[in-house]
Amino acid sequence: MYISKSFIPILKNNPSEAKIKSHQLMLRVGMIKQSSAGIYSWLPLGFKVMKKIEKIVREEQDKIGAQEILMPTIQSSEIWKESGRYEDYGEEMLRIKDRQSREMLYGPTNEELVTDIFRSSIKSYKSLPQLLYHIQWKFRDEIRPRFGIMRCREFFMKDAYSFDITDDEALFSYNKFFLSYLKTFKRLNLIAIPMAADTGPIGGNLSHEFIILAETGESKIFTDKRIFDLDSEGTELEKKSLETLRKKYEQFYSVTDEKFNKKEFENKVSEKNRLITKGIEVGHIFYFGDKYSKPMGASVDLPGGKKDFVKMGSYGIGVSRLVGAIIEAKYDEKNEIMKWPISIAPYDIAIIPMINKNDNLALDKANKIYSELVKNKIEPLMDDTEENFSSKIKKMNLIGVPFQIIIGKQNDGDLLEFIEIGKETKKIRLQEIISILKKQKEKI
Amino acid sequence: MYISKSFIPILKNNPSEAKIKSHQLMLRVGMIKQSSAGIYSWLPLGFKVMKKIEKIVREEQDKIGAQEILMPTIQSSEIWKESGRYEDYGEEMLRIKDRQSREMLYGPTNEELVTDIFRSSIKSYKSLPQLLYHIQWKFRDEIRPRFGIMRCREFFMKDAYSFDITDDEALFSYNKFFLSYLKTFKRLNLIAIPMAADTGPIGGNLSHEFIILAETGESKIFTDKRIFDLDSEGTELEKKSLETLRKKYEQFYSVTDEKFNKKEFENKVSEKNRLITKGIEVGHIFYFGDKYSKPMGASVDLPGGKKDFVKMGSYGIGVSRLVGAIIEAKYDEKNEIMKWPISIAPYDIAIIPMINKNDNLALDKANKIYSELVKNKIEPLMDDTEENFSSKIKKMNLIGVPFQIIIGKQNDGDLLEFIEIGKETKKIRLQEIISILKKQKEKI
Repeated sequence: MYISKSFIPILKNNPSEAKIKSHQLMLRVGMIKQSSAGIYSWLPLGFKVMKKIEKIVREEQDKIGAQEILMPTIQSSEIWKESGRYEDYGEEMLRIKDRQSREMLYGPTNEELVTDIFRSSIKSYKSLPQLLYHIQWKFRDEIRPRFGIMRCREFFMKDAYSFDITDDEALFSYNKFFLSYLKTFKRLNLIAIPMAADTGPIGGNLSHEFIILAETGESKIFTDKRIFDLDSEGTELEKKSLETLRKKYEQFYSVTDEKFNKKEFENKVSEKNRLITKGIEVGHIFYFGDKYSKPMGASVDLPGGKKDFVKMGSYGIGVSRLVGAIIEAKYDEKNEIMKWPISIAPYDIAIIPMINKNDNLALDKANKIYSELVKNKIEPLMDDTEENFSSKIKKMNLIGVPFQIIIGKQNDGDLLEFIEIGKETKKIRLQEIISILKKQKEKI
Repeated sequence: MYISKSFIPILKNNPSEAKIKSHQLMLRVGMIKQSSAGIYSWLPLGFKVMKKIEKIVREEQDKIGAQEILMPTIQSSEIWKESGRYEDYGEEMLRIKDRQSREMLYGPTNEELVTDIFRSSIKSYKSLPQLLYHIQWKFRDEIRPRFGIMRCREFFMKDAYSFDITDDEALFSYNKFFLSYLKTFKRLNLIAIPMAADTGPIGGNLSHEFIILAETGESKIFTDKRIFDLDSEGTELEKKSLETLRKKYEQFYSVTDEKFNKKEFENKVSEKNRLITKGIEVGHIFYFGDKYSKPMGASVDLPGGKKDFVKMGSYGIGVSRLVGAIIEAKYDEKNEIMKWPISIAPYDIAIIPMINKNDNLALDKANKIYSELVKNKIEPLMDDTEENFSSKIKKMNLIGVPFQIIIGKQNDGDLLEFIEIGKETKKIRLQEIISILKKQKEKI
């Protein structure tokens, strides 16, 4: 993409209405535009990042055998009356009357709707387990939307639902998502820690939040530092191995403030390992048994002829929120330098030629490099405008494409000035740059 | 995918509420499930088809240089008041009050919102043309939703918008979409004919509907048969070539009933070439100049210092509707046989083994074939259930995976019974099947 043809509206200064750095950066480099309170349009740069996150989330769902569906945004109030949540949900639910005066709502979550789909489709234990997920827009009518897309009203979320016949099988499903989440966040280059959490309006008695550390986070967390050294490496998608993984994490005290107990914390965690800090919730998983299946009559035939209500769990990842969360974790605000992980970067590499009027040398050279990169399936973003050189570099550092080729006045023959953001400048040949990027992209 | 593990709820009989064949088939093979009047959930089989259509639509937008964005579903009424359409739009617009009593609405289309994004982002003619598109859920509160996803309330649509400074440039953009649409529908294996059409609530004075023939279509069309022999082959993405393409199509009389004029039809089309029939609208493009940019103040600086309002067009494709439209065009209702074009088939090939209790021979063989196909990046759907053989075949014919491998009692060594739906059965080796499918998939 050439900057001159792109739709990347850059602001000169930080917008004053933005209080946290992800909100500032996203407005500044034109990733999003607010359309009304807590509701945003995604412009090309932001859209590309979000789509790449969505793809990784999807792939990791598919890997554990979850099947993708797509439920609508507008739901009927009837199923919410069946579950008993229609009144409970309060003002955060966007309630709508259609032209026939039917009570509808914009789905804030989908336990009811997916239970309705399940009960009319699956009749026998033989078809279990079922793991279903969708990635869809949801709406929560926040009283005070703030922090850009971090606490907005219309947001993009992956939510999954599991259906099993016994608690034991249901926990197997729960643990599959536990693993899947660790893998998803790792691919996004985030260290997300699973923490025992309250279940809130979803219900149930087992729940983990996945939290990444960030000073601007809204969740206060209390944790044993050693949990940060853990990893899901070597875990297999089978019952025992998944149990071992969860135990490995659960051996370390790690909770959000709702679950915090000072005595327990001090007993279980030696002083040098205690960490009290803030974080951002990027995922949340729940096990709630028959909380929805029972009132809604979602049962299956068991072997032997009896029937029982299915045991369910639900599993959310905030896809649009992750864009902001990753900026909170990765953006060096003081130096105004962002670096996207290559797995979700809007472009693979930036080309920044110094362009002077009446001298097309650098531009010609940049164009040749551009074509060569495209030929090798590397996506470049090239600043072909006549803006001055230093503001071009400043702009690209904000956009956060992780690699840069700088084409200044100096001519070093075949050698190009190549920068991986945050590392030393190298002088290397284009072919070497291509092979570095190909290797990086293979690892995604 | 194994049928035993899948979420494909099949109905034994045609559902009585469905009046047209796409609605019948989609409910019958569990592609969709109604959640409330005119609102559907997409189950795995339907979802896969829709996603593949979306991908083709997206690729053809990208090829003409359109940039993808994503506007929210919920919009503020304010911009609709600016354009003057808030009152005009009538009851089809789903109007919403949020918790602060602000007037909101579920977007039925996005001219206002995209104009708002444009006016705050682009200031100079130097950044033009701009082609922006998004693929998003929309809502029209139909008084009588019917025909399944063909005339529903919540639907998935690609809409694009072009911004130029002169009529001449704007028509160049219009013609790019004209080409892009012909190519998109061709890749979906549809013959879609552009027809002069009324502009309706979008406005403007130039508009084409893209229509495919189908007896159940809601549009009556009057056309010169010879238009069906045309093709966009050889057209380049440049002004002259695109003009020639449009002229080639416009030489033949071809209109929907709103534009129909009997005298003109009989004058321009010789009797043997006249075709009066029904069709389904799958795309619609509009040119409306400054209809929105003027009241909303979307202007850019011209060379020389003056300002002018940008000239806009908009371009829609009904992505969810296309799933139904393709069924209407391809489903042989009498024989209960569907065949999806390979480009959008939910799976590439079906494996149908005859399974008897106490005899795993056919199942073992099928499992081996399954693995070999997966290794070759071919996606099989295998019926591993113990249902009787003929109902398995009947079911697969409805699901419409375009190729089948039948594993019956007979043993022909390495030779397999291979069927491309609608063609003769062949006895060939697995490697040959793989190479046939690979070739088919390359053409997508």
